[in-house]
Amino acid sequence: MNGPAPLDGIRVVDFSGYIAGPFCTQMLGDMGADIIKVEPPSGEQWRGQDPFASGFSKSFVALNRNKRSIVLDLKSEKDRDVARGLIASADVMVHNYRPGVPERLGISYCAVKELNPKLIYASNSAYGQKGPRAHQAGYDLVIQAVSGLIASNPNPDGKAPRRYAGIALIDFTAGQMLALGILSALIQRVRTGVGRKIETTLIEAALSLQRQKLVSIEALDGAHPQKAPGTVRERMQAAASQMNDLVERELYYRTFETSDGYVTIGCLNVPQRKHFMAIVGLDDPWFENPDALPQTEDEDLRRRALTSYAEAEFVKKSSATWVTAFEACGVPCAPVQMSSDLMFDEQVAAGGYFIDFTMPEFGHVRTMGPGISINGQPQGHRPPPALGQHTKEILDELAALQVAAVSADGDR
Amino acid sequence: MNGPAPLDGIRVVDFSGYIAGPFCTQMLGDMGADIIKVEPPSGEQWRGQDPFASGFSKSFVALNRNKRSIVLDLKSEKDRDVARGLIASADVMVHNYRPGVPERLGISYCAVKELNPKLIYASNSAYGQKGPRAHQAGYDLVIQAVSGLIASNPNPDGKAPRRYAGIALIDFTAGQMLALGILSALIQRVRTGVGRKIETTLIEAALSLQRQKLVSIEALDGAHPQKAPGTVRERMQAAASQMNDLVERELYYRTFETSDGYVTIGCLNVPQRKHFMAIVGLDDPWFENPDALPQTEDEDLRRRALTSYAEAEFVKKSSATWVTAFEACGVPCAPVQMSSDLMFDEQVAAGGYFIDFTMPEFGHVRTMGPGISINGQPQGHRPPPALGQHTKEILDELAALQVAAVSADGDR
Repeated sequence: MNGPAPLDGIRVVDFSGYIAGPFCTQMLGDMGADIIKVEPPSGEQWRGQDPFASGFSKSFVALNRNKRSIVLDLKSEKDRDVARGLIASADVMVHNYRPGVPERLGISYCAVKELNPKLIYASNSAYGQKGPRAHQAGYDLVIQAVSGLIASNPNPDGKAPRRYAGIALIDFTAGQMLALGILSALIQRVRTGVGRKIETTLIEAALSLQRQKLVSIEALDGAHPQKAPGTVRERMQAAASQMNDLVERELYYRTFETSDGYVTIGCLNVPQRKHFMAIVGLDDPWFENPDALPQTEDEDLRRRALTSYAEAEFVKKSSATWVTAFEACGVPCAPVQMSSDLMFDEQVAAGGYFIDFTMPEFGHVRTMGPGISINGQPQGHRPPPALGQHTKEILDELAALQVAAVSADGDR
Repeated sequence: MNGPAPLDGIRVVDFSGYIAGPFCTQMLGDMGADIIKVEPPSGEQWRGQDPFASGFSKSFVALNRNKRSIVLDLKSEKDRDVARGLIASADVMVHNYRPGVPERLGISYCAVKELNPKLIYASNSAYGQKGPRAHQAGYDLVIQAVSGLIASNPNPDGKAPRRYAGIALIDFTAGQMLALGILSALIQRVRTGVGRKIETTLIEAALSLQRQKLVSIEALDGAHPQKAPGTVRERMQAAASQMNDLVERELYYRTFETSDGYVTIGCLNVPQRKHFMAIVGLDDPWFENPDALPQTEDEDLRRRALTSYAEAEFVKKSSATWVTAFEACGVPCAPVQMSSDLMFDEQVAAGGYFIDFTMPEFGHVRTMGPGISINGQPQGHRPPPALGQHTKEILDELAALQVAAVSADGDR
């Protein structure tokens, strides 16, 4: 017997769209919370992002299982009343409106905590409530630009840098942060009985991913480190050429071309690097501290020659041959695969990383699971809802809850 | 009055190293949990990653505030006993050992849940407990390779792809997932009184970030989609040239070179794209559906010409000029900045995204904050500990707890 899911009985009213908010609430739904997705009559924006059928895109399917959908037109006073009723009945409310919009809709934190002091009010925005950019919208790519993520991947040829991998890594990070805030507030509510307001921002998610670079220490950097001179382009060019230099000496933590593809090696300690040298057939006098800068021009040339030698060795054999040799010695190593290959990967199948459900019109659907394994966790997942699929059900439920509340009031 | 932090009174024993585990427990510490960092006599590995002083690197400082450090040599039976005592006293235990190692150390889940049935036992590994790669180590970059992240950023020139931005995005994602699992188990424990085993893997974190691509729908893809033909290199070349084609027609969600740097634009809807056209001075007949593929060769050429025209316009003016014009119309837009610039950014300062503390030997330290804002949350942060700084304090505390437990037993 597995017992209830961790968030069984937790009711979440979700006004969010796109990626960060829906990903957050899908995680909560995966853990057993009841997610009520409030959508405008036109549907949440992501339904129409390269749709495969009316109201369904693969992106939407990937982010909206384990939810129920209700359509409300928040331009109408009547539907705003229903929204406030839902909020009054909920444990958690989530939105990603720009600052100012919740006030216009009458669902700001100040307004709704009167209705429901136990409510956990969670929102994600681009920049938060304060500062010169607070009122600006910002999508993932724009925040990649402003936060330094784009610049840390400069094009060596100096052209405008491209976006990375087509993944909205900031949105995903922010969605997880929002869920973390919500869960911590639920824990605190057990003790205090009152809700909290939780806020995350895309800019902080982007900075969080770069936190190892964003450390300033007075004794090293001075109390107020100086802004580096030069235009962004000049500094990105300098960074790109520095990175090129590093790449031309890099032996142990990188990707090599093979006869039929690529393999990636990660040697972070001396024993791993010794195995690497033996397998590739090279003798690197600098293996104990490969990240140190070359001391002389001669050393630099010799280290680049070692890298060229290794590159020439790797293209002589197949990826599978190299992987087998490295794995036999415990050197972290893998072939470069395409994400579509993962649908067929033995490790993925054995690990049970995907989950499956059935959508009546489209048959069997396979999507990436929650990725958080909890022992004794019940399985079973609802498919993503059609637009407004549960409007009547949720309205009936709300009416019953309100009747119950009025009658409980009358009993006092 | 703010009251206690959300995780006040929660005791976490942390055996993890590198990034994912320490990031997870730092988040819990930021929320008020007591994090006991168990380190080997040589110190946690990351202390020595490009250190600025003995036992301290910037990476370590970025990931280990709000913790106490105790040194235990788990090769000695005596210290393993202390470790088990700490685990018996804790609410949560975290590690990132490879499968098999906890069994050898006598701290497997089976072993420790006898000691402490309320314990939440959380671990992160590369691939989890099952499948052909379960026993392999895997660092962030290796998992980027095997999961498709590296391949989704192919080099147009066909050389081995580089790693992205020098950030361990999979480690950060996995650390957040582990924290989410722990918080959900804490919520569940309030109801059930018993702990749970929580597991996350780097491979699932990598797949989670790509979940929008990892959707297979029977009616569209067949019950068992076919693996694409060709070697990985051929398919990556094809993907790179497809991506190049897209980039040469991309107008609305991309980075442009300006006279002094770069600006990034994100127009995801029609009104934003209309503003864009007016500001840049172009007339794009395809603005309503810019992601649709060109229908004819002539259309393709005309769309590429529009992109070239826009690129030529952007280099005529400065980044600041463009940003001002776009912002005036509400078009999401930002200059490309370097992460080091963020230390001086007005928005970052106004938002209060960083937190500060003092390290006795090094003075004032500024690092990226938790990024999760909780209203009424107490401030105040402990600096990262020196190796073994709290060994005596923690041992004394444990002895007192054990005496109290024995005497409570005697009272029964």
